[in-house]
Amino acid sequence: MNKGEGEASYANNSTCQVRSLIYLSLSLSLLFGLQTHPTSVQSTIPTLTIYIFSLMQMQIISHGKTVMEKAVFRAIENSLPKSMGIADLGCSSGPNTLMAVSEIIDNVRKTCREIGLPMPELRVVLNDLPGNDFNYVFMSLPEFNASLSKNKGVGSDRCFISAMAGSFYGRLFPKNSLHFVHSSSSLHWLSQVPSGLEKSGKHLNKGKIYISKTSPEFVMKAYLRQFKRDMLIFLRSRAAEVVAGGSMVLSFMGRTSPDASAEVGSHQWELLAHALMAMAQEGVVEEEKIDSLNAPYYAPSAEEMRNVIEEEGSFVVNQISALEIGWDGGLVLDNINNNIGLDEIDESSKALKVTKIIRAVVEPMMESHFGAQVMDDLFTRYHGLLQDYFSKAIAKHINLVVSLTRKF
Amino acid sequence: MNKGEGEASYANNSTCQVRSLIYLSLSLSLLFGLQTHPTSVQSTIPTLTIYIFSLMQMQIISHGKTVMEKAVFRAIENSLPKSMGIADLGCSSGPNTLMAVSEIIDNVRKTCREIGLPMPELRVVLNDLPGNDFNYVFMSLPEFNASLSKNKGVGSDRCFISAMAGSFYGRLFPKNSLHFVHSSSSLHWLSQVPSGLEKSGKHLNKGKIYISKTSPEFVMKAYLRQFKRDMLIFLRSRAAEVVAGGSMVLSFMGRTSPDASAEVGSHQWELLAHALMAMAQEGVVEEEKIDSLNAPYYAPSAEEMRNVIEEEGSFVVNQISALEIGWDGGLVLDNINNNIGLDEIDESSKALKVTKIIRAVVEPMMESHFGAQVMDDLFTRYHGLLQDYFSKAIAKHINLVVSLTRKF
Repeated sequence: MNKGEGEASYANNSTCQVRSLIYLSLSLSLLFGLQTHPTSVQSTIPTLTIYIFSLMQMQIISHGKTVMEKAVFRAIENSLPKSMGIADLGCSSGPNTLMAVSEIIDNVRKTCREIGLPMPELRVVLNDLPGNDFNYVFMSLPEFNASLSKNKGVGSDRCFISAMAGSFYGRLFPKNSLHFVHSSSSLHWLSQVPSGLEKSGKHLNKGKIYISKTSPEFVMKAYLRQFKRDMLIFLRSRAAEVVAGGSMVLSFMGRTSPDASAEVGSHQWELLAHALMAMAQEGVVEEEKIDSLNAPYYAPSAEEMRNVIEEEGSFVVNQISALEIGWDGGLVLDNINNNIGLDEIDESSKALKVTKIIRAVVEPMMESHFGAQVMDDLFTRYHGLLQDYFSKAIAKHINLVVSLTRKF
Repeated sequence: MNKGEGEASYANNSTCQVRSLIYLSLSLSLLFGLQTHPTSVQSTIPTLTIYIFSLMQMQIISHGKTVMEKAVFRAIENSLPKSMGIADLGCSSGPNTLMAVSEIIDNVRKTCREIGLPMPELRVVLNDLPGNDFNYVFMSLPEFNASLSKNKGVGSDRCFISAMAGSFYGRLFPKNSLHFVHSSSSLHWLSQVPSGLEKSGKHLNKGKIYISKTSPEFVMKAYLRQFKRDMLIFLRSRAAEVVAGGSMVLSFMGRTSPDASAEVGSHQWELLAHALMAMAQEGVVEEEKIDSLNAPYYAPSAEEMRNVIEEEGSFVVNQISALEIGWDGGLVLDNINNNIGLDEIDESSKALKVTKIIRAVVEPMMESHFGAQVMDDLFTRYHGLLQDYFSKAIAKHINLVVSLTRKF
């Protein structure tokens, strides 16, 4: 990884893993009666707040905040909006859904104070797929709005939070209606499994569920092709929706190696495939089922991302940072009072934590393919493999943070 | 009722009762394998379509369509929008949620053809309270959008349907963002039970749950005061959101008599109170519980509505129609092939149908107040009272259809 390119991650939900981690941390925090994340929808959380972060985590958060702050500043300075359109793409549903919005609003207030502008009317749109639990999000809005009004002076006649269900790989919003777009932990999901992974009824990525060292080269090509196609549509759609001078901060899983089968970026899938193949050898699942499964996921390199942005042509790249995060989010908890380093925690509990995180993310996909009855078995094996892996390697993800401005 | 003022109701969901009726009719229609409403989200409904309506119902629908058509025409002619903001307030959640939107879009297309304008971009917002099942609505959107694109030539880059959760008794949308507002079957619900119905711990509307002939005068005054307060806030909020020349079509339960305790407008509550009081006499529920319950509902007269609109001052009244609808929606079904008149159906099955309609609407309120265990008893008694009532009177509701234009 090129550390020089940046070492921060957008605040708390910079990767799929970190977003999940926060859920886990929240439940742990409720268990321990403390709060483990620095920004929050205050009202839904116990008031006693103790922040427990490794130094790395704190740096990542602080750096991520800076990227967001700059992007919001740029968007407002460029377009001086009286009514500001803001979208959070892949907002998900849970206690953290409104954290990004809360932070964006803080940055808008700060920018307006600095520039000497009146606070614009805010039109915030939360987006996710139609299957997302928007009911949960809507139920938390009255409290969030009340807190906005009370704590930030943004009344109900100044901020309008709505929801738009649909895929961001296509148009979602009216033309020139957005000034700032945010997306975290979502863009590593492709719109579909790449086509071309099957030929004359034969599965080409045998024994694997993502790009692997043993995958034939056209598997990698098919994934890259799908990534490019999706990202082009994403950028073209946003180009129509974002006003000239508006900005976007996108963070998602990526890699630093030019090789898509490099360990960092793919190994979480590799270990899942190992667990599944062991089950196949024992006759618990059919090998053909593993051959036919491919994750609709792609962790691009900064270079690949930059190439698509340039090909699409509507956005200027302000910054692409590639940030290292431990598989457990870099956040280490032992008990209420002690803050210990990443490598000090024992492999078993770290593996258990990571298993829970990964399970929360991939279980729906695995369950619909292999059936609910083998899920416990699968993730028990996965836990074992993780434990072994953690004893040999420092398990890291790469989080790409991309900051763009819509060209004039 | 002043029949001269109009004799139509907005298409299918012009009153709370009719909206509920449509649900019932839909389930009946699925049972019988036919469709009982004239406009529909085609894709979710069996293709075999037989329309069964009494003549009155057909006239109401046809007249309602005209009010809507004129209002959409007026909005477009007045503002010639390139991007048109449309809101459906109190959209509810069910197979009919998108029917109003579908009809509005038809009218926009028709108007644009007539005026020779290019079809504007459509920004449609569905609104209801945060507790509404928006997940259901969102899940039906992909099919609806596909049908819009295929059947009406309105592609995914021309129509954006989002959701805004919150009370319409307050600001919901950005300033000057809407060109057409629609609301049906919602505005008869007050923002709260009127204050002042209790004095020094004594309940003033004893034995009743809405305005009744026996209610003290200040009960009526308290209801009217709450209606005025709510409607003023509603109109003020919309005045900020609707562009000059934009229009609104609002339909909701009302009355024609100046007397708020008149039978038409209140008798569905009166009979519920009778059923409850009979239960109290047998010790099934506590009388004090009935005394303390008052419905957050008000069926205004056209005059009362007109007065508030004039007091608020931002809207011109184009039309207020007061339309008669049978308690069963004026829609009479016997079997697949026969279309019979309102008075030809026997009282018992009509009472059963109306009981189901009313139960679907008021059961949540009744259940939270009296407990789930007495609900069957309550609605069995209610069915009996309805049967008796239908044998003596023609049970009618009044549906007010209000068409307004935002002043320049």
